[in-house]
Amino acid sequence: VLHLIIADSELELVPEKIRDHPSVVNYAKKRGKKPDEVLLDSTYHHSALKMLEDGDRRGRPDIVHFCLINALESILNKEGELRVYVHTRNNEVIYIKPETRLPRNYNRFVGLMESLFKDKVVPKGLELLRMEKKTLLELLGEIKPDGVFIMHETGNLLTPKELGERLVSYTSPAVVVGGFPHGDFLSEVEGEKVSIYREPLMAWTVVNEVLINYEGSLLW
Amino acid sequence: VLHLIIADSELELVPEKIRDHPSVVNYAKKRGKKPDEVLLDSTYHHSALKMLEDGDRRGRPDIVHFCLINALESILNKEGELRVYVHTRNNEVIYIKPETRLPRNYNRFVGLMESLFKDKVVPKGLELLRMEKKTLLELLGEIKPDGVFIMHETGNLLTPKELGERLVSYTSPAVVVGGFPHGDFLSEVEGEKVSIYREPLMAWTVVNEVLINYEGSLLW
Repeated sequence: VLHLIIADSELELVPEKIRDHPSVVNYAKKRGKKPDEVLLDSTYHHSALKMLEDGDRRGRPDIVHFCLINALESILNKEGELRVYVHTRNNEVIYIKPETRLPRNYNRFVGLMESLFKDKVVPKGLELLRMEKKTLLELLGEIKPDGVFIMHETGNLLTPKELGERLVSYTSPAVVVGGFPHGDFLSEVEGEKVSIYREPLMAWTVVNEVLINYEGSLLW
Repeated sequence: VLHLIIADSELELVPEKIRDHPSVVNYAKKRGKKPDEVLLDSTYHHSALKMLEDGDRRGRPDIVHFCLINALESILNKEGELRVYVHTRNNEVIYIKPETRLPRNYNRFVGLMESLFKDKVVPKGLELLRMEKKTLLELLGEIKPDGVFIMHETGNLLTPKELGERLVSYTSPAVVVGGFPHGDFLSEVEGEKVSIYREPLMAWTVVNEVLINYEGSLLW
């Protein structure tokens, strides 16, 4: 089974520092929520983000949404050969049961993530999603993969096919993909840095290439 | 070059029949638009959709969004080996320039599509997206592919890898993927019906499998 970790994802509630910024106050009001209950979103909080450290990369629930929608609907997941985790910039880890059908609608997905930050599990009975305070290193210590691959612009260049072939030589490899739009990992990670293209790729493109090439080597 | 056609997509403005339905009127008002200017969206117009023919599958701009975000950010597209078209249930065709960077935010994407329905080209100068009245058959007549593959649950079962290998034996194959959540194509299409999995897959999953396996056979 392949462990896919979307790491240092830009998924967080609006930080305290900008909770009284007009763009945040208006956004929360329009959605009938309090400013400390809504996700940070670069589309709507652009001007407030300038006041935050790393403001040019934060507030990207859309990246997490695209990665998860692709991963959970993949053939690999349907075959029971995938586990997906979302790790955030504030060291939370979201565990997602493989049978989870996430909302396709972005606004509903944002609402679901807001419930998760509040309640730590959603939905109450099924607990398809669960959030715990945890670093990337702690998560890897828990998974105990027999190989860790970090998808990184400066890593060893392999073709996506070669990466798929490498991955199937492990029993339970972990692949770490950055859940941020640009820049580098914030977390410490130990593993083999790998690149599959000569140019930077979006997180969901890397997810698709990894899962489908692993699937190709494993199943067909 | 591979021609990817998202066909019979459930992308349309709110049909006249339900423009005075409360769910539509309120939705349009909230967005500061007129009911005849907004996209039909099953998330928000659920109750009104029951009054329409095929109401259980219509109003799915999210499917088009996922397919396009994956296709346009794919390695295949970066290599200049992909052309993408969206064909709708009302026989419009959207031509998309390969260098287009679509909005990642769903609400912005919806706004862009609404402008496109109104103006037929967006943005005015660059014309990255262009919409024309056209059937799927007319589009195929224009592209003149040397092979047409229709992704279909009842098609010949191939592994994704075998499909990739088949596709590269053509100079400019066309692959038709249904841009709807379930059911069958509305359009007439002639071509080889192909299935890549024993169960139904979401449209964007099929898009990812087709593009990455074609890329694998073509480039690596």
